[in-house]
Amino acid sequence: MNTRIYNVRILTMEAGKSIFRGEVWVKGDTIAYVGPSVLDAKEKWDREIDGQGNLLMPGFKNAHTHSAMTFLRSHADDMKLDEWLNNRVFPAEAKLCEEDIYWLNKLAIMEYLTSGITSVFDMYLSKPATLRTVEDTGYRMVICESINDFGGTVREVEDDYKRYNQDPDRLISYQLGFHAEYTTGRPLMEELAGLSEKYGIPVYVHCSETKKEVEDCRRRTGMTPVGYMDSLGLFRQGGGIFHGVHMDDADFDILKQRNLYVVTNPASNLKLASGIAPVKRYLDMGIPVAIGTDGPASNNCLDMFREMFLTTGLQKAICDDPEAVPAMEVLKMAVVNGAHAMGLPECDILAEGRKADMILIDLQQPNMQPLQNIEKNLVYSGSKQNVKMTMVAGKVLYQDGEYNLGSSKEEIFARANESARRILG
Amino acid sequence: MNTRIYNVRILTMEAGKSIFRGEVWVKGDTIAYVGPSVLDAKEKWDREIDGQGNLLMPGFKNAHTHSAMTFLRSHADDMKLDEWLNNRVFPAEAKLCEEDIYWLNKLAIMEYLTSGITSVFDMYLSKPATLRTVEDTGYRMVICESINDFGGTVREVEDDYKRYNQDPDRLISYQLGFHAEYTTGRPLMEELAGLSEKYGIPVYVHCSETKKEVEDCRRRTGMTPVGYMDSLGLFRQGGGIFHGVHMDDADFDILKQRNLYVVTNPASNLKLASGIAPVKRYLDMGIPVAIGTDGPASNNCLDMFREMFLTTGLQKAICDDPEAVPAMEVLKMAVVNGAHAMGLPECDILAEGRKADMILIDLQQPNMQPLQNIEKNLVYSGSKQNVKMTMVAGKVLYQDGEYNLGSSKEEIFARANESARRILG
Repeated sequence: MNTRIYNVRILTMEAGKSIFRGEVWVKGDTIAYVGPSVLDAKEKWDREIDGQGNLLMPGFKNAHTHSAMTFLRSHADDMKLDEWLNNRVFPAEAKLCEEDIYWLNKLAIMEYLTSGITSVFDMYLSKPATLRTVEDTGYRMVICESINDFGGTVREVEDDYKRYNQDPDRLISYQLGFHAEYTTGRPLMEELAGLSEKYGIPVYVHCSETKKEVEDCRRRTGMTPVGYMDSLGLFRQGGGIFHGVHMDDADFDILKQRNLYVVTNPASNLKLASGIAPVKRYLDMGIPVAIGTDGPASNNCLDMFREMFLTTGLQKAICDDPEAVPAMEVLKMAVVNGAHAMGLPECDILAEGRKADMILIDLQQPNMQPLQNIEKNLVYSGSKQNVKMTMVAGKVLYQDGEYNLGSSKEEIFARANESARRILG
Repeated sequence: MNTRIYNVRILTMEAGKSIFRGEVWVKGDTIAYVGPSVLDAKEKWDREIDGQGNLLMPGFKNAHTHSAMTFLRSHADDMKLDEWLNNRVFPAEAKLCEEDIYWLNKLAIMEYLTSGITSVFDMYLSKPATLRTVEDTGYRMVICESINDFGGTVREVEDDYKRYNQDPDRLISYQLGFHAEYTTGRPLMEELAGLSEKYGIPVYVHCSETKKEVEDCRRRTGMTPVGYMDSLGLFRQGGGIFHGVHMDDADFDILKQRNLYVVTNPASNLKLASGIAPVKRYLDMGIPVAIGTDGPASNNCLDMFREMFLTTGLQKAICDDPEAVPAMEVLKMAVVNGAHAMGLPECDILAEGRKADMILIDLQQPNMQPLQNIEKNLVYSGSKQNVKMTMVAGKVLYQDGEYNLGSSKEEIFARANESARRILG
């Protein structure tokens, strides 16, 4: 399907390029033109969308989430982390089946679409369910492997790495990872380091989310989680860490030296009282930061606008510096860095040849007026209400409150509620 | 006009009362019935609204804002407070005329409505413009006096106190206040204390927002702002402070003893790097807390959902306690405490005889599913997108994205942009 979107302001997210007025052409799942209006275009279009002067930009990338945890939303809030994880989350997850995960994924995708998120880096329990979700919805998901001592073998991981990286359209892809240092013994981590080395592929992992995690690791190994995992060779091919809240000086140096990404999850870190990540210091050191919502059990919403405001607002407060982490830097994290961290360089900016993962932002809402600085409006006052249209791989999956996901909103809600009721009682 | 809203879940916000299914009747600007469905009702209705199982609750109260600062949204972000205030805000405000403020107020009201905010405690420059706004829109605003050494006399304040408290419908009302200790000399504060005593009325003021403000006051007076203003007799009739970020032990005791409200503005305090207010300690001591957005120049959005998440999330993080400030407590602050802090006890809950300031929350959105705990969903995952309808004084001012404010959305946007362009260049 070929689509022309015209009469739009365009924010390509190319470094240094300002917003301009023009149009964008999409052929199949790929952007074919981004530029000023073409008055004598002779192309034939399957569809033409009048953007009415609104803003077209690349979609947000949710660089760390556990989508199907939607069933746990508001089930266990205002609780201590240990109690939350051991008494609520793990027993409930034990009852999940593949069919649950499929529908709970779809519920999460609905919410991602309302927030302009066009792809997610998803770490959860059933890869077949995730593949089915992607096939049926047309949404883009990158699986992050989450093997640990309680499930999975490196042989299976190697197979999955090949199996889930075969999609030529890259709607589904796969990155090597594991759950965390505290759930994974040294033998398994060494095997994973070997696999990373064998294929020259990066490794992703939950790391230094809580103070207790860091203290426990120090007691056991004499090193921080970053230091210990690096000493096992896990970061030789790059990769990234999720959370990165509690860091010492040497940790920063390792992240920098290994070209690792940090994915910050500010709302989840607040709600679970984990702390506030040192994002400004990461940026000052040139360590790239991307942004994730984390799962809906801990956040509890899947909203990049909330995460963007927190990413800058919290740094300003803890660094006592209102100039910390300016708005354009936050947008870059939420869009470009996210794509790169997830291994989706073809989804980073609006340009010819890039994937057509784009969103249309409604500027005719009071929170976007007056139109003085649209980038700042997005970060400081933007909300889900501003997302008029979300397109993934050239297909409009959400527009003006309506979803195009292969099943109705009512069915997805009903299935998700059934799963929640059956599992949680 | 008489309205029946049926087929709704109802959250009255009465202490200890759970959500139930039923209907609400409105006669004129007042609630006439709240309870289970009445099958054989013989009333005649001008209008019946099918709530489709969604949630009806009292509107949010924005207990501290400067509405017409909408013209400064995204004009001066990522800047130090002094530079922001002296080089950007004050010179721009000097060029504002009454007509500007009227239209900029309307722009703010549009955004309040999208966030389910049914009344605001507004501290700004032109009371006649605010009165005109209220008369033309039907929105509910409480003027907070903002006299200081740079403008106003106590004689005028006394006149305004009488003039703006005459409206029998209480769409507009007025509370005694002044800008801040650092902009107001001792003679004026003593006169205001006298006025407060004369009429037995509370006093509201910006207080202890920044560390510098507290340090400067200590240097000048040997006391904190709270201590100094209390020593001048300003809090003998109660009232409240806006911000209350930097407090010492004695300050807490004074707030408690004088029955003062604290209005917290967490997003603004983050963005201007002012700090994080000790909300948990206020609650532990029984000091009532309400929530404000502060003005759009510092926030930059007017969204109670963002403030609610921050009010609890920040406390969990800084107190290292995920149980801090549970969701129902936050809702109480945003609804009931706000009404009481602003002198609107008739707007606090849904009950017969209370004003019909209500909102309908769309539960058929992915961020509200599954429907396990609606109160927690509101606080932790709610967003503007969930506001289906906002009613003030029995009049629907916003429904399904459409406004009913006496002038079109296009006209309000155009006027606000004109003001911004003329003033800011």
